[in-house]
Amino acid sequence: MATLVVPNPVPTLLEDAEKLRKAVQGWGTDEKALISVLGHRNADQRKLIRQAYEEHYKENLIKRLESELSGDFEKAVYRWILDPVDRDAVLAHVALKSFNVNFKVIIEIACVLNPDDLLAVKRAYQKRYNSSLEEDVASHTTGDIRKILVALVSTYRYDGKEVKSALASSEANTLHDAIEGKAFNHEEVIRILSTRSKAQLNATFNRYKDVHGAALTKKLLDDPADELTAALRTAVRCISNPIKYFEKVIRNALNKPGTDEDALTRVIVQHAEKDLKEIKEFYYKRNSVPLDKAIAKETSGDYEAFLLTLLGTDGY
Amino acid sequence: MATLVVPNPVPTLLEDAEKLRKAVQGWGTDEKALISVLGHRNADQRKLIRQAYEEHYKENLIKRLESELSGDFEKAVYRWILDPVDRDAVLAHVALKSFNVNFKVIIEIACVLNPDDLLAVKRAYQKRYNSSLEEDVASHTTGDIRKILVALVSTYRYDGKEVKSALASSEANTLHDAIEGKAFNHEEVIRILSTRSKAQLNATFNRYKDVHGAALTKKLLDDPADELTAALRTAVRCISNPIKYFEKVIRNALNKPGTDEDALTRVIVQHAEKDLKEIKEFYYKRNSVPLDKAIAKETSGDYEAFLLTLLGTDGY
Repeated sequence: MATLVVPNPVPTLLEDAEKLRKAVQGWGTDEKALISVLGHRNADQRKLIRQAYEEHYKENLIKRLESELSGDFEKAVYRWILDPVDRDAVLAHVALKSFNVNFKVIIEIACVLNPDDLLAVKRAYQKRYNSSLEEDVASHTTGDIRKILVALVSTYRYDGKEVKSALASSEANTLHDAIEGKAFNHEEVIRILSTRSKAQLNATFNRYKDVHGAALTKKLLDDPADELTAALRTAVRCISNPIKYFEKVIRNALNKPGTDEDALTRVIVQHAEKDLKEIKEFYYKRNSVPLDKAIAKETSGDYEAFLLTLLGTDGY
Repeated sequence: MATLVVPNPVPTLLEDAEKLRKAVQGWGTDEKALISVLGHRNADQRKLIRQAYEEHYKENLIKRLESELSGDFEKAVYRWILDPVDRDAVLAHVALKSFNVNFKVIIEIACVLNPDDLLAVKRAYQKRYNSSLEEDVASHTTGDIRKILVALVSTYRYDGKEVKSALASSEANTLHDAIEGKAFNHEEVIRILSTRSKAQLNATFNRYKDVHGAALTKKLLDDPADELTAALRTAVRCISNPIKYFEKVIRNALNKPGTDEDALTRVIVQHAEKDLKEIKEFYYKRNSVPLDKAIAKETSGDYEAFLLTLLGTDGY
């Protein structure tokens, strides 16, 4: 469930556009007013506000905000204001263009979204960058990492619930053999993770645990320095339990000396309208500290206020 | 352009359904009547006729035809009567289930269709078989052939016209190096063929020809016994010139001792509503024999009449 709080009744588009206009006009910016509007509107509403703003004031709201804001707050607002598929396309592009490709972002998009949502992101990516996500992933990576990433972003999985249990057994064994043999680049592992449906994969992971006494991810822990193992592990975690996976991304981001704001922003903006409530609950269960308190401790100012607003806590 | 001839005005759906009903009822079947209706209706019309037939006579027309007809004629009618995306899904499934996987059929579907049409076939495949085309291709093939086939069916290419000419040059060289080194399973060749847009690939192929003095397909001829080389060659031909490619499929099918009816039927039914006119013209140019004459020579009876009808020649 979402954590985003939308007021009822919601102000008209013109009222919202006007409030934003006032917030960015003149000397200085009224960040509080920006947050009070944008932090309380869903994707459809934000889109209509952008359109209303542009029609009425003949300027692009996103560009105006970019020129008014800065730092982590600007990044968070920019990511938030976009349509979800555009946001994922942008996040993928940023991940590919960074000096060390952030392959986790690519795997999250490829493995957490359902097949049609992944396709929508791939279409948005093509529209924005005039190239396919597949080709850009392939040309920014090499070796084994490339094999797994290209396979994961390319595939259009079957999305049905039907599970073949004999197949789950045999492929649990295939995974086990490949992992015990330390052949992490084994074509079979990549084939299974990238082509099977999520329902089928979860049956295979369960079967693996039943037969081999430990979760597949535990077996993939052995060599944390190995990038491919880490990628496979990320894929398995994103497929089997995204809530648990994202809780850990947030936890690592907050615990990192200096805080990993990019990761923190990414998870909050991507999930505030989807399942951030579950992630928040899981965070509390795991850390015995409410997520809003933990975020308040590690962040400050408008950035803090904005994240807390998206988290359903009043930011100011 | 299509070769299919649809009468104007076209009879009503009920008139068509009635004529088909009369043709299949009683002792024997009136194949001529079947051809005169089905061989002169486009995909939308055939779909509506199937629906009208089922509503009116409470039986499935396709099943009824299967029980009435036999041999190559039955296969051709069955393939023809389906919606194009369903037909391609069925053809892919048949290709995968045959003892020796007919990888050419898979490559044709993956490389000739535009990205959204390929996607529609993958959706139809999932609906029909409760599994993805990706996973079925992967589990029915092994080794290098699997790598190229899975990559080709998975990808969702960029479909724009924009071409990067520096990239075409550098990737023409990459292809050349990979081929001269005889490393046909080189990851780079598969990456380039499976992720780049068709416009970009054609620029790369042209660049290859300019720099290396011969077409890429000529270079891939060297070892015809090698399945992977043959697959790569098929992919390049389907991407660069499908008309020329399909002319050769037809020519080979007709020249084979005993005739390859499956291949002949496949090309005729797949293209009668699309570009069979161009294939037919290219056939004449290449062989100095009209395609309908060549088909009439190698086939007979209702099967011959049906193919000729789809080819725009009166079948009887």
